[in-house]
Amino acid sequence: MKDMTNLDAFEVGYDIPAKPGMDEADIQTPCLVLDLDALERNIKKMGDYAKDHGMRHRTHGKMHKSVDVQKLQEELGGACGVCCQKVSEAEVFARGGIKDILVSNQVRDAAKIDRLARLPKLGARAICCVDDIDNVADLSAAARTHGTQIECLVEIDCGAGRCGVSSTRDVVEIAKAIDAAEGLKFAGVQAYQGAMQHLDDYNERKAKIDVAVAMVRDAVDTLKTEGLECDIVGGGGTGSYYFESNSGVYNELQCGSYAFMDADYGRILDKDGKRIDAGEWENALFILTTVMSHSKADKAIVDAGLKTQSVDSGLPFIYGRDDVEYLKCSDEHGVVADPGGALKVNDKLRLVPGHCDPTCNVHDWYVGVRGGKVETLWPVSARGKAY
Amino acid sequence: MKDMTNLDAFEVGYDIPAKPGMDEADIQTPCLVLDLDALERNIKKMGDYAKDHGMRHRTHGKMHKSVDVQKLQEELGGACGVCCQKVSEAEVFARGGIKDILVSNQVRDAAKIDRLARLPKLGARAICCVDDIDNVADLSAAARTHGTQIECLVEIDCGAGRCGVSSTRDVVEIAKAIDAAEGLKFAGVQAYQGAMQHLDDYNERKAKIDVAVAMVRDAVDTLKTEGLECDIVGGGGTGSYYFESNSGVYNELQCGSYAFMDADYGRILDKDGKRIDAGEWENALFILTTVMSHSKADKAIVDAGLKTQSVDSGLPFIYGRDDVEYLKCSDEHGVVADPGGALKVNDKLRLVPGHCDPTCNVHDWYVGVRGGKVETLWPVSARGKAY
Repeated sequence: MKDMTNLDAFEVGYDIPAKPGMDEADIQTPCLVLDLDALERNIKKMGDYAKDHGMRHRTHGKMHKSVDVQKLQEELGGACGVCCQKVSEAEVFARGGIKDILVSNQVRDAAKIDRLARLPKLGARAICCVDDIDNVADLSAAARTHGTQIECLVEIDCGAGRCGVSSTRDVVEIAKAIDAAEGLKFAGVQAYQGAMQHLDDYNERKAKIDVAVAMVRDAVDTLKTEGLECDIVGGGGTGSYYFESNSGVYNELQCGSYAFMDADYGRILDKDGKRIDAGEWENALFILTTVMSHSKADKAIVDAGLKTQSVDSGLPFIYGRDDVEYLKCSDEHGVVADPGGALKVNDKLRLVPGHCDPTCNVHDWYVGVRGGKVETLWPVSARGKAY
Repeated sequence: MKDMTNLDAFEVGYDIPAKPGMDEADIQTPCLVLDLDALERNIKKMGDYAKDHGMRHRTHGKMHKSVDVQKLQEELGGACGVCCQKVSEAEVFARGGIKDILVSNQVRDAAKIDRLARLPKLGARAICCVDDIDNVADLSAAARTHGTQIECLVEIDCGAGRCGVSSTRDVVEIAKAIDAAEGLKFAGVQAYQGAMQHLDDYNERKAKIDVAVAMVRDAVDTLKTEGLECDIVGGGGTGSYYFESNSGVYNELQCGSYAFMDADYGRILDKDGKRIDAGEWENALFILTTVMSHSKADKAIVDAGLKTQSVDSGLPFIYGRDDVEYLKCSDEHGVVADPGGALKVNDKLRLVPGHCDPTCNVHDWYVGVRGGKVETLWPVSARGKAY
């Protein structure tokens, strides 16, 4: 049993999983843990890369949903602002003091448009994406109602197959409508190739981005001939940022996962055929979990199941251990193969989640640790902000 | 665009997705919607079944995590109490006024055991499971510290392969230790066969439960010869409750998903080979989602992706429509095949999630609707309570 003399251990677990100053061993599980040293190194490294390549970096806040992580990315990594996917997330970042906010998504519902138009009143630059000319009048009306300005990027579908237009003609048509609309400002193009980020092979990823770059270059050049300059040519993720950075046409990166890493991204290979979590980026995010049953000699049951992670991109792996393996999970349990009987009840393990974004979204807190001690607690500020 | 004269539509979407009295069309999406008529019919039906078969029904609150749904299950469905999987969930139910609470899981961490022992001070009967004789002394010490009683069920692994002991000998040994421990009361056995609930074929499910029933009967009979009566012989889920109810040995059901239904459970077949969502249970839970982009003629993009649902058991299906199909999802988007171009931007769809439990856990609210109007908002009271 845990040391019963440490009263701190009995004060946490209600609404917080830990308290600053506490030993890592006393954290209540399951919860998210951030290795602050690794996180800071990742953030600094990407910031330096962007700076060295003349790129702005608009870090993707949809991944961490944390004002504190975003501020670290701006202060330590030189990020120019945040991207997020929902107006309700944008509000959280604006209220948290983030000044430059791109909703890298379509905003179509009247109430959401109204809220987007109010964002500048919270002190933030408000940018959104547009892929339908019918959206322009609605955005303009809301901006006029509130006496604000919404900056608009035309979204190009450069291979992800979701939102976005597919031809330069459509880009130009929408850009002109934005440019002509009161309360709106044409600000450039959004061209994130999301579908290729997780292809293992570097050259396969490069081939997809080559297509995207060609589409974007054609659009940007044509816009220029029409007198429309792109302040922002945005895109690029953790699996592709070097391609966009060297494209000569993109000027803003939108990486998110590089800061935390996860099992699915970690598997992709760099140009030398090496996993990106084996040198390029460090695992900084973990689900801390505890063994709660070991009634079978070769299996340990841990307390992190489906409600503490998303398994859409595969199961987590157990960090720093090759003697045990996370085999499967149900709502509240994980089954861990323990062939050598290495684990006992109340042992803790660090899991690297399969997919960081939807995993962070089910937690209320990040527990920041350094040197075996809890240094800080950061709320997952925009957790559940899906509107 | 939505009717801009309905101010209610602009007041929601911050921390609540809807307001009582509002039209269903004005709900902010994505969010969870409950069809209250269907929910009440499901609850009444299962309650009547249990009563007619002389069974208590301890409804599984880990599914809905809602004090309001639990109260409806007790009032309308005659449920005897709640099961849940975490001490932090149990606290939410106890504070919400639920009087009879089983943590149908192992509680091993010292802080969690301490909290479990304090549960009776909130006015609730506290029951937990035990699968390791080493746990008994810790539970007993905490109950003595707080001057309370913890009732204990010995958990039998009757096929799920997670927690639980596998032999009658182990059951009896642990039961005797519980019976002898100050502050504890031996209350029976927990034997939930979770692994078979989702087998499509009725007879395959029956074969698995026949094995479970034989194990449980042997344990219960042997305990009796040792002078240990089982107040509770608990188990049974939405895919098996009729087997346990007719076993002659179980006396408490623990169904959860029957109340809401989901796509994965809906697919399993009853004894006549009919899907259980085609007569046995109604879909009462939906993710309401809105079309936010339709830049490709044959595809609509909706606003419900991985952060509004768990896809561990497959994708959602679109309720009441066979002309459109939810094809894939990413963090914030769902791609819907719309070959006939039936959908337009801002159209709403009802999705039946693949797996209700981890889907409910990512939302803050249930929007209860009846006759096209929002009747009530219920918090997902134990959302995120994973400790």
